[in-house]
Amino acid sequence: MKTEVAIVGAGPAGLLLGHLLRAEGVVVTIVERASPDYVLGRIRAGVLERTTTDLLRRLGIDARLDAEGLCHEGFALADGERLIRIDIAGLTGGAVTVYGQTEVTRDLMAAAPERGLEIVYEAGDVALHDIDTDAPYLTFEQDGAPSRLEARFIVGCDGFHGPSRKAIPASVAKVYEKVYPFGWLGILADVPPCDHELIYANHDRGFALASMRSPTRSRYYIQVPLDERLEDWSDDRLWDELAVRLGPEAGSRITRGPALEKSIAPLRSYVFEPMRHGSLFLAGDSAHIVPPTGAKGLNLAASDVAYLSQALSAFFRHNEGTLIEGYSQRALARIWKAERFSWQLTSLMHRFPDQSGFDRRMQMAELDYIAGSRAAQTAIAENYVGLPL
Amino acid sequence: MKTEVAIVGAGPAGLLLGHLLRAEGVVVTIVERASPDYVLGRIRAGVLERTTTDLLRRLGIDARLDAEGLCHEGFALADGERLIRIDIAGLTGGAVTVYGQTEVTRDLMAAAPERGLEIVYEAGDVALHDIDTDAPYLTFEQDGAPSRLEARFIVGCDGFHGPSRKAIPASVAKVYEKVYPFGWLGILADVPPCDHELIYANHDRGFALASMRSPTRSRYYIQVPLDERLEDWSDDRLWDELAVRLGPEAGSRITRGPALEKSIAPLRSYVFEPMRHGSLFLAGDSAHIVPPTGAKGLNLAASDVAYLSQALSAFFRHNEGTLIEGYSQRALARIWKAERFSWQLTSLMHRFPDQSGFDRRMQMAELDYIAGSRAAQTAIAENYVGLPL
Repeated sequence: MKTEVAIVGAGPAGLLLGHLLRAEGVVVTIVERASPDYVLGRIRAGVLERTTTDLLRRLGIDARLDAEGLCHEGFALADGERLIRIDIAGLTGGAVTVYGQTEVTRDLMAAAPERGLEIVYEAGDVALHDIDTDAPYLTFEQDGAPSRLEARFIVGCDGFHGPSRKAIPASVAKVYEKVYPFGWLGILADVPPCDHELIYANHDRGFALASMRSPTRSRYYIQVPLDERLEDWSDDRLWDELAVRLGPEAGSRITRGPALEKSIAPLRSYVFEPMRHGSLFLAGDSAHIVPPTGAKGLNLAASDVAYLSQALSAFFRHNEGTLIEGYSQRALARIWKAERFSWQLTSLMHRFPDQSGFDRRMQMAELDYIAGSRAAQTAIAENYVGLPL
Repeated sequence: MKTEVAIVGAGPAGLLLGHLLRAEGVVVTIVERASPDYVLGRIRAGVLERTTTDLLRRLGIDARLDAEGLCHEGFALADGERLIRIDIAGLTGGAVTVYGQTEVTRDLMAAAPERGLEIVYEAGDVALHDIDTDAPYLTFEQDGAPSRLEARFIVGCDGFHGPSRKAIPASVAKVYEKVYPFGWLGILADVPPCDHELIYANHDRGFALASMRSPTRSRYYIQVPLDERLEDWSDDRLWDELAVRLGPEAGSRITRGPALEKSIAPLRSYVFEPMRHGSLFLAGDSAHIVPPTGAKGLNLAASDVAYLSQALSAFFRHNEGTLIEGYSQRALARIWKAERFSWQLTSLMHRFPDQSGFDRRMQMAELDYIAGSRAAQTAIAENYVGLPL
């Protein structure tokens, strides 16, 4: 098999890149390890920046997004007592859209066949070859038979654990990483959310987040120690804890219901440099991870593929390589700023095991300062809606 | 001896409070351990907020301040390459005044006799008594003879090492502290400054600050390890290091000269709560310390005594105790915000021994974000000029 761009991974990054390249007439094949149902089973964040929704609109894959996406013009920070509303519309003129990553993936998948975006699912043992040359190729197994896909470029959209990043020699790479000493215990339930906007709470007992997927489906999280056991958290215990941590106002408005899904995820900041090596590009989680605080992960994947689709289109349509040369640096400039915002919001809103009394008061003083400062609120809001591409 | 308010310490906090109370007709006696020359020999920061200069103007002790103080409408953050100017006038409408703490002290001292502000210098073994009652008193030695000063209130303006804070029982107090793993090596020299505004630099080799006392007297600092020995830093070595850390642009404009003074000071964040116990009040460094980054120390002392002079005047003139009851909480609200700013600017601009590659990139990403964000610059500027009283 032969293609122009071989993409590893049919998550939102790979699918979005595939569609953007198809719209420019580039021949694309996506190779995905899992089945479509498995891909759709991954539950992730759902707060989309304007830069991300703009890409979906440009592709015309926005009918469900428009019908079901919730426009959010603000969110709140809570300190156990107060709700400090960040009026992102009033402060920046922007807004974000709450629309689950699963839904984005579903829409992009559904539009693939009609747009000639070829996706090979359930490809086993995907491996990258000859990425130092102009003729790289993938090998994988399909229905038990070995397969080979030749391409001019390979793009790794295969997430943190995929094979693409590992194909880049360690000798040319730099890795930056921070592992946080806690995880997020999440619950998904078909109940109305406690507020029409998101609430990030820093309570004495730890962080909590009130979020939603729709007006009838809520998503809540609490910070837990890394060694916490899921079986110790009955639905009741989790609802009780949320009610305390979200504070008297929001906590009392929680509607309880049985968990559709409950899981614990670790928090990590991670950046791999560079994002290009020879004929291989990395995009999204394959190159960088942010902690979920602030919901930047999917949006960073979207800005990566926006830059990369421009670069690859320029190459295939105009034989112009400048954007390809500049991709890694251009993408990383935005990534580092989002890493900074995610790290700072995480640091501000969580309890840390080694936190001193002084450190704790610094968090309270910062929330107090934010509550009274338009400039501080604007700085948070402009990062939350997404810095310009 | 008898007075209405006995102040321990004739530094800028004690002197300013004494003058403010005298202006309201309150009888005040200041008791100071050292001699006037010793007090004037302490070299400290010299960036005054508007809230501080307003107090001096209100007292009419502003002739030299007006003649010699330098109005600064901005300062710069440097990252080893760039200078990022923070246009505090353009962003906030405010400005700061560069006028040495020593000069403030000298002006306040000189105005004391004509305004009936009594100061007892060289008082040995100052001790506080009966602060839990309405009749507290100080004992001290003067010219070898024991002395006793009775008062309605005692105010501790005697700095971090003075006896006042220690007179408050540990059982009613909370202490918050952070000791930074580095110090500042400072040099004072009669040479023109390298820039007409201050430059705070975060260089790979560590922090540096270019500051001044006047157009012909420069004050520079570099971050050094806590165990650094002063004798290892010749003037030449220090000038060489400053030229590197301040970056190519500012570094090349340094004028070198012999050191008038050279010393190493540790950096500390410290807050003691509450700031009142019975008939004793604390103000300034006796209750709280900030690291010198951002020059908040003297300005916090000034806002403490502004609040306290209002409270004590209301008590003596109108027999009104509400402001006295509220003093600690009111002062601490502003102190915690200044502690936050000083801690954050210190954290942003210094190299830390245990800093990971990720932590270092967070500093660079924050400087990069600040360079491009009016909101982030405004947040820094509004703290730098001083939050409202």
